[in-house]
Amino acid sequence: MQALKERIRKDGRNLGGGILKVDGFINHQVDPGLMEACGREFAQHFKDSGATKILTAEISGIAPAVTTGIHLNLPVVYARKNKPITMPDQVFLTLAPSHTKGRMVELIVSPEYLADGEKVLIIDDFLASGATILGLARLAQTAGAQIVGIGALVEKTFEQGRTALEVLGVPIVSLVAITNMNGDAIEFA
Amino acid sequence: MQALKERIRKDGRNLGGGILKVDGFINHQVDPGLMEACGREFAQHFKDSGATKILTAEISGIAPAVTTGIHLNLPVVYARKNKPITMPDQVFLTLAPSHTKGRMVELIVSPEYLADGEKVLIIDDFLASGATILGLARLAQTAGAQIVGIGALVEKTFEQGRTALEVLGVPIVSLVAITNMNGDAIEFA
Repeated sequence: MQALKERIRKDGRNLGGGILKVDGFINHQVDPGLMEACGREFAQHFKDSGATKILTAEISGIAPAVTTGIHLNLPVVYARKNKPITMPDQVFLTLAPSHTKGRMVELIVSPEYLADGEKVLIIDDFLASGATILGLARLAQTAGAQIVGIGALVEKTFEQGRTALEVLGVPIVSLVAITNMNGDAIEFA
Repeated sequence: MQALKERIRKDGRNLGGGILKVDGFINHQVDPGLMEACGREFAQHFKDSGATKILTAEISGIAPAVTTGIHLNLPVVYARKNKPITMPDQVFLTLAPSHTKGRMVELIVSPEYLADGEKVLIIDDFLASGATILGLARLAQTAGAQIVGIGALVEKTFEQGRTALEVLGVPIVSLVAITNMNGDAIEFA
């Protein structure tokens, strides 16, 4: 997607160690117009997926998931990393490694909002190693839901997440693919 | 706002202790269409505010802030509760008590995205005691920015947050006001 690629070229920063800083338009400051355009793009890709629900992980998946939900007219569930007091005692919980935190984080979804038979479209900001998305898929499958598609704003192809997700056997769409971040590089596919 | 009031009537739950559970459409599962309508409503109220930026707090302020940002064509900054590795060492940080966590949480904004002279519209899910919103206002003022308005999806008038925010001297808009949550009640203004 050209607009997102250009924005990464302009405002993205390679911090080294495979970390792409996109805090100016996705992760801390959000560009709502850009996220709206990304949501429209995901909706176009997944309009025939049969999805009944969108699943993402807090925090930075929320904006693109919500804009996709606006266009597909689907509810969005974001997995929590801490269990709030409003959540029932019995929850779906899995662990996934956090790229930017350097440790395992919990992904928690209430059974109230992820049900048997649901068809789930997973949307997230990054597809890197695929570990967070695999964690979301485990939560959905534990709930008896079926994954029907995966969308990520930015794929870092050199982290092989797409290969890790192949086991799910569903379409994987990334709006921008980055193939190399060695040194200061941000190279696009 | 009638649609939000009706949704709270239908799916909101009074958990006691002033806690209103809205996990089915705002806080864990998000109804994107409803958030879009709320964003449109906020935009209508604040279209002449002169705002140059929207400020909110992660996590549950993100959806209404982003939909408001879509309609006002403004960037959204969400204060982080943990400092990610992509953020500079020098940040704006304040503490605010968390209603649902029962402890103080940090609110952190990078100076990269909150600048001197900026006019800030604060959007959040709840206006209860006003402590989170006052924390956001402190961050903005520390950055040299000016607050021009405050919008909350749901105001719990019995927690007196509006009085606490009067010191800011700006318009305060809540889309739904709840006046009483004694016992099982959810009474609207």
